[in-house]
Amino acid sequence: MTPLINDCFIRALLRQPVERTPVWMMRQAGRYLPEYRRVREQAGSFMNLCTTPELACEVTLQPLARFPLDAAILFSDILTIPDAMGLGLEFAEGEGPRFRNPIRNASDVRRLRVLDPESDLRYVMDTVRLVRDRLGGRAPLIGFSGSPWTLATYMVEGGSSREFRKIKGLMYQEPQLLHALLSTLAEAVALYLSAKIAAGVDAIMVFDTWGGVLSPDQYERFSLAYAKRALDRIGRNAHGKRIPAILFTKGGGQWLEAMAESGYDALGLDWTTDIGKARELVGHKVALQGNLDPQALYAPRDALRTEVAQILARYGRGTGHVFNLGHGVAPDVDPEQVRTMIEAVHEFSPAFHGAG
Amino acid sequence: MTPLINDCFIRALLRQPVERTPVWMMRQAGRYLPEYRRVREQAGSFMNLCTTPELACEVTLQPLARFPLDAAILFSDILTIPDAMGLGLEFAEGEGPRFRNPIRNASDVRRLRVLDPESDLRYVMDTVRLVRDRLGGRAPLIGFSGSPWTLATYMVEGGSSREFRKIKGLMYQEPQLLHALLSTLAEAVALYLSAKIAAGVDAIMVFDTWGGVLSPDQYERFSLAYAKRALDRIGRNAHGKRIPAILFTKGGGQWLEAMAESGYDALGLDWTTDIGKARELVGHKVALQGNLDPQALYAPRDALRTEVAQILARYGRGTGHVFNLGHGVAPDVDPEQVRTMIEAVHEFSPAFHGAG
Repeated sequence: MTPLINDCFIRALLRQPVERTPVWMMRQAGRYLPEYRRVREQAGSFMNLCTTPELACEVTLQPLARFPLDAAILFSDILTIPDAMGLGLEFAEGEGPRFRNPIRNASDVRRLRVLDPESDLRYVMDTVRLVRDRLGGRAPLIGFSGSPWTLATYMVEGGSSREFRKIKGLMYQEPQLLHALLSTLAEAVALYLSAKIAAGVDAIMVFDTWGGVLSPDQYERFSLAYAKRALDRIGRNAHGKRIPAILFTKGGGQWLEAMAESGYDALGLDWTTDIGKARELVGHKVALQGNLDPQALYAPRDALRTEVAQILARYGRGTGHVFNLGHGVAPDVDPEQVRTMIEAVHEFSPAFHGAG
Repeated sequence: MTPLINDCFIRALLRQPVERTPVWMMRQAGRYLPEYRRVREQAGSFMNLCTTPELACEVTLQPLARFPLDAAILFSDILTIPDAMGLGLEFAEGEGPRFRNPIRNASDVRRLRVLDPESDLRYVMDTVRLVRDRLGGRAPLIGFSGSPWTLATYMVEGGSSREFRKIKGLMYQEPQLLHALLSTLAEAVALYLSAKIAAGVDAIMVFDTWGGVLSPDQYERFSLAYAKRALDRIGRNAHGKRIPAILFTKGGGQWLEAMAESGYDALGLDWTTDIGKARELVGHKVALQGNLDPQALYAPRDALRTEVAQILARYGRGTGHVFNLGHGVAPDVDPEQVRTMIEAVHEFSPAFHGAG
């Protein structure tokens, strides 16, 4: 493997000293970039873009060609796993994802295919290898997965949801069936992320997008327990290096103490949490990633710079902070605003590191 | 005024001793009740139901006729205030609320009518008087309002929103204009709730449904500050009694300490907060209302009873707890499940009070 030329993202995740705070952005490879929209159009469909390694590689690298980012994140979708397990993913234009065969009962759970990532999701692994070659160590590559709980919400609801009535109904009426589904998914997530590590990613991240709709007790039993179980089954020393792992539960700000005990190296924070208070609470155990309000990218230049400076100041001195948004960048954001954000991190953050 | 026969809800809010934990339910007058659906059909439209005191009174009292609830809540809608201020509220069937004249600029804010509740919202005040007469002191009556911030989100977005791009854009680009709008709304909320107190409600509640989409700093400046300002302008000793006030910020579990300093007597909690931890944090200053997961009403009877017992046990011994859901009851819930919940509160809660 090519050694990393810029590894400050990895060092910050492992809470080793850095010269400045690393920065990347959730959904940095995405619709706000005109060059992304061109490739997306060329691909014809979103799924075609995900499943064509040459195109997925191209959009993964686009934000790094434009901005001095400290990490690349593999362009993909969290629903590739349930698709490969037999649920039949469809993206209707403007409607979000739908599954042809959602989970309705115990036999649906038993019928789920055991994931063999190198054959079932070969296109993902090929994209990892292609991106690694083209990156040449310029930046670390992040491989990600949905959390077992978050994948289960889509698989049971049949697509996106606002109320989560079906999966909450299942939780209250047939908790053992939900546990069986989550066990299967924890195994699939572990196999998937292990395959990505073997193919060459430098860090892994688990997106628990819907953990925040749970009560504290439900969160620990149905979301965190399975995110932890997946992690426990992943060998994280690869190619002579430690592969750091990040857990991001949107809406999880009240459960950071439990999350910090789960074995993940870093926690992602959405913008509703005070990153300074979060550090006081858990910063001696884990690194923190976040947490600018994504809508601050609509602010005038000076106000945006102030918001960046405030996040850095709230985190304070020392390593363990990866600058990011608290959620994905919106499609209508001006890319020059992203540049302003990154430059502000470069300008303001060295004062919080080193002898300064 | 008729003295209250059952005032345990009021005593719990004021943290005075009670014999058992009082219980009511957000949206208890609503679509899950067949008798509500009949009156709603008779009314022809949702707005007609809100604006006809005889019908609004009838649906307010329906849940109390069916269940032994400890409070009535006036049937109304939070968007009556902006409607009365000139925004032109419309409910398109199955689409949620829309305003014909949303707030776009400074002249829209200046054009807002100063609210005169007894004339502009006479139908609300008439409903309060009618309900008070018919209740005859059997239970206290709650009058509510949206928080200034929550009202502003609808007024700027023009209706419901998932992303809040317009109001967040306004916040970052023209914060002074948003502050002007919020000042006007704080005044309107104060006038509205003061008029309800004069008409005879026994407690007031402010619904800050969308406070949880803000960052901690934004929450304090744009939501809490104006909820507090409204409260400060309301005389809360009426008819020889103290009128308690409840503040409910959905998604506000991370900001309870700030909320507890705002002058409200009680805080509403959604189901993502551990009510035991919340009590440790703020229970010496305020009462707490909540916080069963509304979807626990889909659970089998025994599981539902266990969930109720767990909430009571987490809060623990002593007064200061009003049992409620963490959000409104869903339209497809079986009313018998609501009965099970209430009976479980009656059965389990006395052990947490008195000498027991």
